[in-house]
Amino acid sequence: MVILGENQYGKSRVRVMKVERHGDRHEVFEWNVEVWLKGDFTACFEDGDNSRILPTDTMKNTVYSLARVVKAATIEEFATDIVTYFITTQPQVDEACASIQATLWQHIDASGQKHPTAFMHTGPLTETVTATRPRGRSVLVTSGFTGMAILKTANSAFAGFKKDGLTTLKDMHDRLLGTVATAKWAYVSPGLDYATLRARITDVLLRVFAEHDSLSVQQTLFDMGKAALETAPEITEIRLQMPNKHCNLVDLSAFGQDNPNHIFVPTDEPHGSIEACLRREN
Amino acid sequence: MVILGENQYGKSRVRVMKVERHGDRHEVFEWNVEVWLKGDFTACFEDGDNSRILPTDTMKNTVYSLARVVKAATIEEFATDIVTYFITTQPQVDEACASIQATLWQHIDASGQKHPTAFMHTGPLTETVTATRPRGRSVLVTSGFTGMAILKTANSAFAGFKKDGLTTLKDMHDRLLGTVATAKWAYVSPGLDYATLRARITDVLLRVFAEHDSLSVQQTLFDMGKAALETAPEITEIRLQMPNKHCNLVDLSAFGQDNPNHIFVPTDEPHGSIEACLRREN
Amino acid sequence: MVILGENQYGKSRVRVMKVERHGDRHEVFEWNVEVWLKGDFTACFEDGDNSRILPTDTMKNTVYSLARVVKAATIEEFATDIVTYFITTQPQVDEACASIQATLWQHIDASGQKHPTAFMHTGPLTETVTATRPRGRSVLVTSGFTGMAILKTANSAFAGFKKDGLTTLKDMHDRLLGTVATAKWAYVSPGLDYATLRARITDVLLRVFAEHDSLSVQQTLFDMGKAALETAPEITEIRLQMPNKHCNLVDLSAFGQDNPNHIFVPTDEPHGSIEACLRREN
Amino acid sequence: MVILGENQYGKSRVRVMKVERHGDRHEVFEWNVEVWLKGDFTACFEDGDNSRILPTDTMKNTVYSLARVVKAATIEEFATDIVTYFITTQPQVDEACASIQATLWQHIDASGQKHPTAFMHTGPLTETVTATRPRGRSVLVTSGFTGMAILKTANSAFAGFKKDGLTTLKDMHDRLLGTVATAKWAYVSPGLDYATLRARITDVLLRVFAEHDSLSVQQTLFDMGKAALETAPEITEIRLQMPNKHCNLVDLSAFGQDNPNHIFVPTDEPHGSIEACLRREN
Repeated sequence: MVILGENQYGKSRVRVMKVERHGDRHEVFEWNVEVWLKGDFTACFEDGDNSRILPTDTMKNTVYSLARVVKAATIEEFATDIVTYFITTQPQVDEACASIQATLWQHIDASGQKHPTAFMHTGPLTETVTATRPRGRSVLVTSGFTGMAILKTANSAFAGFKKDGLTTLKDMHDRLLGTVATAKWAYVSPGLDYATLRARITDVLLRVFAEHDSLSVQQTLFDMGKAALETAPEITEIRLQMPNKHCNLVDLSAFGQDNPNHIFVPTDEPHGSIEACLRREN
Repeated sequence: MVILGENQYGKSRVRVMKVERHGDRHEVFEWNVEVWLKGDFTACFEDGDNSRILPTDTMKNTVYSLARVVKAATIEEFATDIVTYFITTQPQVDEACASIQATLWQHIDASGQKHPTAFMHTGPLTETVTATRPRGRSVLVTSGFTGMAILKTANSAFAGFKKDGLTTLKDMHDRLLGTVATAKWAYVSPGLDYATLRARITDVLLRVFAEHDSLSVQQTLFDMGKAALETAPEITEIRLQMPNKHCNLVDLSAFGQDNPNHIFVPTDEPHGSIEACLRREN
Repeated sequence: MVILGENQYGKSRVRVMKVERHGDRHEVFEWNVEVWLKGDFTACFEDGDNSRILPTDTMKNTVYSLARVVKAATIEEFATDIVTYFITTQPQVDEACASIQATLWQHIDASGQKHPTAFMHTGPLTETVTATRPRGRSVLVTSGFTGMAILKTANSAFAGFKKDGLTTLKDMHDRLLGTVATAKWAYVSPGLDYATLRARITDVLLRVFAEHDSLSVQQTLFDMGKAALETAPEITEIRLQMPNKHCNLVDLSAFGQDNPNHIFVPTDEPHGSIEACLRREN
Repeated sequence: MVILGENQYGKSRVRVMKVERHGDRHEVFEWNVEVWLKGDFTACFEDGDNSRILPTDTMKNTVYSLARVVKAATIEEFATDIVTYFITTQPQVDEACASIQATLWQHIDASGQKHPTAFMHTGPLTETVTATRPRGRSVLVTSGFTGMAILKTANSAFAGFKKDGLTTLKDMHDRLLGTVATAKWAYVSPGLDYATLRARITDVLLRVFAEHDSLSVQQTLFDMGKAALETAPEITEIRLQMPNKHCNLVDLSAFGQDNPNHIFVPTDEPHGSIEACLRREN
């Protein structure tokens, strides 16, 4: 006999542009929101009984309505507002989850100053959050980012690795190390100063990447995550994904030219994949 | 103190085009392979000791070398070959995982017959597999597909749902139902006739979608998954993701025109999200 | 002094799903429409005088309204309807242009027959058209397609080419030849049987690609276009873009393996680019 | 009889990462290069005679070899070097064209200063150039950018436009105006100080966009282009594409909420399309 296992439903790609109007000066927030609800929806799946199903269209309306009402200045606060709303108002829901991606905008420099109502999208880094609220428990907030494209042109090696009959890679003592990093860190409790913590964690990740004397992507990833945990006692763990976006040295010898680490071919495929979670020892 | 948690590394987007040459008739297989290895790599992360690290470049070479040697005619068999190879030859590895996406090609119809050595890519459906092999255990094979774009223009309703103060959606008794389905099903044991099973499962999913008298995406998803489990005792569970790609009826009344379900706006965002796992009751 | 040169404005990505209801059997058409208008809009650009500017929002409404009214069964007819509408109703417009991309759907095979109201998107080939109507002249219709991914595993060579000091490519007498072809052909007059002509031209392009004994992409492209012009006197010229999507033979000799044209790496970058227009000699 | 019309061939997506090593401080340039050659290649198309065809693979090699040799610090200079090389060394070529897209990297801020050998990709703006050299003439350089995502939250109106029976848009006196601008400007002669000119033109385009009191996208586009031509006598014309990426005000009245220009839905489709060329009057 067939039974229903894990399931959830929700609304994805709900886009919001919020303009805060402080007199003649504005701020803009562009958020892409996803909402998921879990609960006992067996009757819907098995019998088509929709009486416990709040439509996903209503979830979309809720995001817009809350965006108008709440004071959230960070995606962490807005995601918390969303999941709290659903847990509070929908008794048939056992767990609500909201994820938000923020596209970043900054004031345009014009005539020597930041223009108060004109903006340019900066990127490609996107800020992310996931807030999860099971019924009867406090919200769990996990912040992070995607799309941090970073590159080291010095202080990166990869040598002494295991070699087998299919290994053709040579030890490299001075290579380019490029990645497009994704990070997620979990906060120990809700209601923190998320903006300050995000800035502090992002800065330390960048600083360690820049200054690290790298023996492998793994080692650099570990030192980055370790520094984040040490700089922010408010987080319990951090997950880092750092694909190795290879820059291959071009062999110009057939043309009688040398190439002492000057000309490379950046590639997207294939790429190495390195990911790990670091946490505090209990 | 900071410790290393879950971690893995591997190679992604290793692309292979394999041409089987049966005299004057050829077959082509286009595979995009990803390999992951798990084990105790703490010394690499913490100390930069690479002596247990088989390079991801070697994993890429291994995929090409195995593609030449093995007899795999399905992605399930090739993924099994890959993980078995790594578990067998790399004692420092505790678990090997290989995922493959297959781009499908068919012979071109030319001059009234299938041309033996000319092909057209069909799509957008992509076949997928993930094979996982922990040390000391048999391989677990999970097959599926992504990108199955399907649409019902009749026999789809959504009514009787829960309404709150933010609900504006009206009951719909005759709507379009479109989705781009993703499926994954797990086999009870390795070494099965994967091609036949894949065809049988895909056919039944399509048939139930087409013939279902749908009261919700959830109900249709459930009946599809149920039919797959009933048609194939060789699978233990199936996971289906069926985002609701809304086709919104255009209101032409401002122009003095009616629109009895003829003209719609297909949209990609926002979209509903429905996903569930179905399994056999033990 | 600065003057306004060529300019145009319009609406892009207007998506339409049209369901034709023939009793219990339906047909679906998914069109992505773009409209451009040209005329003397200097006062708008230079002075912000919008009195001659029909809003792009109205163009969108027009697409929907016309979709409900007209009998067009092909994108060629619908594009013609759109440009004729704008030239007829908007005296300030000197030229109207409409481009349409059609996403293709076919009835799902279920229980041994084509299901009358369930569909699957086929692809990745997309059908295209551009209709242009200058005031006082008849419409010019250019049809075509994008995304025709095709591959030859035999009867393709590339040898005897020019070699200079930077040439490392060797003559190849048996290579894979893959492309993702784009085609556009111009009709000699409007009002033709577009569906039949499209099928005939597409078939002959595929047939020649499949059966050609290729000495270069250029030669194959030329013979394909030549055959299209010969099979369809209704077209005056055809433009073909056939990027050379290289499949590189993998060198397995370091592993003691041969590779007699069996294992290749398909690549997207870099790729060769070949494009040409063929027409009838006057 | 069928004849060959316009045709060209070349190599696309040739990616180069160039690391300039100034002692302990590095600079990185990431370029995506496309090369096109034109000439009389009829014998290749019609007869498969490749003797005048320099392989596209050689074009790729040439890009790498030149990148090692030349001193180009801008994409304008490198594109000029490429086309000059092909015109000089390939007598069978009548015209050479090179286009380059530059992905931008900046030094990472770490420990209070710019790190000399660590970089972050900034974006999404991409710098572009096309250099074209017909035999016997000097090179024509056209510079520009793609992906400049900009937004005004004040000083943007659209009113007084033409209304017909399908117009539902209301006059707007305070709307959001967002676009992802593309620009191309042609230089009057080669060998200019391209980096300084690019900075000056980009700055003035941004400044006018920010400070403009906009009555339409067209009017803002015109004033931006006019300012660019006035600030840089070295350019002869500028083409601007400014799609109108609509931010639609959300109607919250059904929920008893007002929305005085605070909450919008940003959309990608459909979008308005506005493009124009501005030049100096002769």
